[in-house]
Amino acid sequence: MGQKPITFFRQVLALCAYPDLLDDNKFPEDAKQRARRILGACGGHSIGAYSASQGIECIRQDVSRYIEKRDGGIPSNPDNIYLSTGASDAIVTMLKLLVCGEGPDRTGVMISIPQYPLYSAALADLAAVQISYYLDEDRCWGLDVAELKRALSAARTHCNPRVICIINPGNPTGQVQSRKCIEDVIRFAKEEHLFLMADEVYQDNVYAEGCKFHSFKKVLFEMGPEFSSTVEMASFHSTSKCYMGECGFRGGYMEVINMDPEVKAQLTKLVSVRLCPPVTGQALLELVVNPPQPDEPSYSTFMKERTEVLAALAEKAGLTEKTFNTVPGIICNPVQGAMYTFPRITLPQRAIDTAKEEGLAPDMLYCMRLLEEEGICLVPGSGFGQREGTYHFRMTILPPTEKLKVVLQKIRDFHVRFTKQFS
Amino acid sequence: MGQKPITFFRQVLALCAYPDLLDDNKFPEDAKQRARRILGACGGHSIGAYSASQGIECIRQDVSRYIEKRDGGIPSNPDNIYLSTGASDAIVTMLKLLVCGEGPDRTGVMISIPQYPLYSAALADLAAVQISYYLDEDRCWGLDVAELKRALSAARTHCNPRVICIINPGNPTGQVQSRKCIEDVIRFAKEEHLFLMADEVYQDNVYAEGCKFHSFKKVLFEMGPEFSSTVEMASFHSTSKCYMGECGFRGGYMEVINMDPEVKAQLTKLVSVRLCPPVTGQALLELVVNPPQPDEPSYSTFMKERTEVLAALAEKAGLTEKTFNTVPGIICNPVQGAMYTFPRITLPQRAIDTAKEEGLAPDMLYCMRLLEEEGICLVPGSGFGQREGTYHFRMTILPPTEKLKVVLQKIRDFHVRFTKQFS
Ligand SMILES: Cc1ncc(COP(=O)(O)O)c(C=O)c1O
Ligand SMILES: Cc1ncc(COP(=O)(O)O)c(C=O)c1O
Repeated sequence: MGQKPITFFRQVLALCAYPDLLDDNKFPEDAKQRARRILGACGGHSIGAYSASQGIECIRQDVSRYIEKRDGGIPSNPDNIYLSTGASDAIVTMLKLLVCGEGPDRTGVMISIPQYPLYSAALADLAAVQISYYLDEDRCWGLDVAELKRALSAARTHCNPRVICIINPGNPTGQVQSRKCIEDVIRFAKEEHLFLMADEVYQDNVYAEGCKFHSFKKVLFEMGPEFSSTVEMASFHSTSKCYMGECGFRGGYMEVINMDPEVKAQLTKLVSVRLCPPVTGQALLELVVNPPQPDEPSYSTFMKERTEVLAALAEKAGLTEKTFNTVPGIICNPVQGAMYTFPRITLPQRAIDTAKEEGLAPDMLYCMRLLEEEGICLVPGSGFGQREGTYHFRMTILPPTEKLKVVLQKIRDFHVRFTKQFS
Repeated sequence: MGQKPITFFRQVLALCAYPDLLDDNKFPEDAKQRARRILGACGGHSIGAYSASQGIECIRQDVSRYIEKRDGGIPSNPDNIYLSTGASDAIVTMLKLLVCGEGPDRTGVMISIPQYPLYSAALADLAAVQISYYLDEDRCWGLDVAELKRALSAARTHCNPRVICIINPGNPTGQVQSRKCIEDVIRFAKEEHLFLMADEVYQDNVYAEGCKFHSFKKVLFEMGPEFSSTVEMASFHSTSKCYMGECGFRGGYMEVINMDPEVKAQLTKLVSVRLCPPVTGQALLELVVNPPQPDEPSYSTFMKERTEVLAALAEKAGLTEKTFNTVPGIICNPVQGAMYTFPRITLPQRAIDTAKEEGLAPDMLYCMRLLEEEGICLVPGSGFGQREGTYHFRMTILPPTEKLKVVLQKIRDFHVRFTKQFS
């Protein structure tokens, strides 16, 4: 999508891949230092060696320090950090660890609707029971405890609810949960004895004024020992999102909190089956949690690149919302964070009928027509889940601004045309 | 363990990580060409982008060409190639795909004893039934169809056997299966309607005179259409072994053969849950299957490095076997291939009794004492499985020759001492 990688990260990764370059005076000293530090922590000083299954120790330490800094000093223990093959791997592993039972004892897992499809897929694969709770589109995809309670008590009849998953900032909905809402969720998890899975891979992607990322861990600890020493939790992060966008490296981590030591031993055993996460992804994660510092030569370029990426995303978030809301029949919540918008579309009855005849979800018909007519690929809301009778699509805000403007214009024109055609 | 990475591979990986280096005249032209080719096949020309879940298409094509060349022209279809996060990932995924059923219908999976522990771990995790067949230590860890039949019919009473796994060359046993033996296994798989999983990650690690690597696929196709169009099979390869030894990159592939298209569709869906294998691992795999050619500038260095690594391994394989067989109470089969030796040790009755008192397997006691006395870590045979009443340890042959000599000498002295102490 045209987003440029952070120079410093790629320099260090090249140095790690081919350490002969350490003699090259083209590379800044801090990049070389970081590469030496990473290589020093690798078996045989090579990123080609297997690492410990939980991840390279010094990187886990740096992850802990990063979390402590992010959360204003709340302690983090490197023993609770598991490096992973992207967040996907950690999320799937954690679900696998938590799901058990048969029949009405089968583990139920609460996930938001609309959801990121990794969750429904992993639950189907594990034969766990998906407990859907709906985000409130009218309150900017907010999370309402009354809805959590409704979903939970409906589910108790046929499964054993044990886990609640939250994505914040949200995919596909782009909302940033308020501190109050996070407190409510934590209180709910405590009352109902649920393990809390906080998918926080978009933690640096917050754009809307007045919005701020609050980590579940920080809020948990600020609620006092009654909560911070009892609620079991895992938080997930990734090198794929934020300002780095390095999806191909498959880097990530999870931090587990208040996990029973015996369960944690099983987790460690479980991750060791696949030997270790990719060391290149671990190295990249090390750079994300330990970026150039103000007194280092790469700092100014790093900050410039980082700021540019995040500013461009913020601009595109605003542009997308504004443009969609000028179109009759499209209602778009603010893109407070993450990289997506999930606008609601009004479809004419005839379009709905036609879709039924063709055996398609109505928003699938809409997206297929758009693809055919304009070559633009959106994902229909039905792929993420939505309230019965409502229709949406998901679009990323990632294309370069000028391209995004063209895309938004084309979707607008298409929407008007489509509505006319089926009215 | 001191094994040096292949220069060409690391150069291309550095170029892919930091493409600014493409302007650097320090890199050979063929390395730059390969990097450009790989980047051209990546989304946005960056290894930071997600790839297709099955892997980058042009790399899958090159894997197919590599297999065709290896197997003397037998066709390979890139649609049947799945790139993976090391072979571990592909093996676990394939087992997951094949295991189903409950109670006496639960899928049974045949694995060799001694085995590589990935298999027993994955089967336990999937609650599949492990069907153990024993390799014949007296015939150089050969595979005997009578033993396969015995194991299978014993298992039929309590599960539904559907899969047979073979590791060739073997870990931990270091044998290379003969062509005849592979034919027997294929015939057995056909007769018993078993899915054949061929773990061939050590395919370039063959040292013993008279031994040759025969791929299951080649033998299958040479047995004629009666076999080649019916036996369902998957073969696994990895960037972690052979002459490259690049474990940290987590590269690998599997080729599936005669898989029902509907099952294959499920496989594709299954791998897409985790998005994609690490792109750096995919890039490395591309280089393994498409190494420098005779008319290219990097060829001579590449061949020199490759030959040196394999020659050193061959030397160490011979050295290990010879040294162990001079020790009374150690019997060591030839290390025909792979990177391991699994010698049998005779333990005095008093050592066995002492181990029992301490709640340890006798070979665990032996390995713990060795670790404490000499700082050498071997894995007890009980970790891999062995015939009741026999004891072994596994050692890699990877340490540099001079170090290996010291290690072998220390183990020899320890064995003599240990035997005396408990006699
Ligand atoms: C909410 C959410 N969680 C997890 C992931 C997985 O990311 P990765 O496996 O690349 O770290 C994604 C990717 O889009 C996501 O949107
Ligand atoms: C027989 C065998 N199969 C598979 C693997 C997994 O290798 P990787 O996941 O690194 O490709 C190994 C590693 O030691 C092995 O010995």
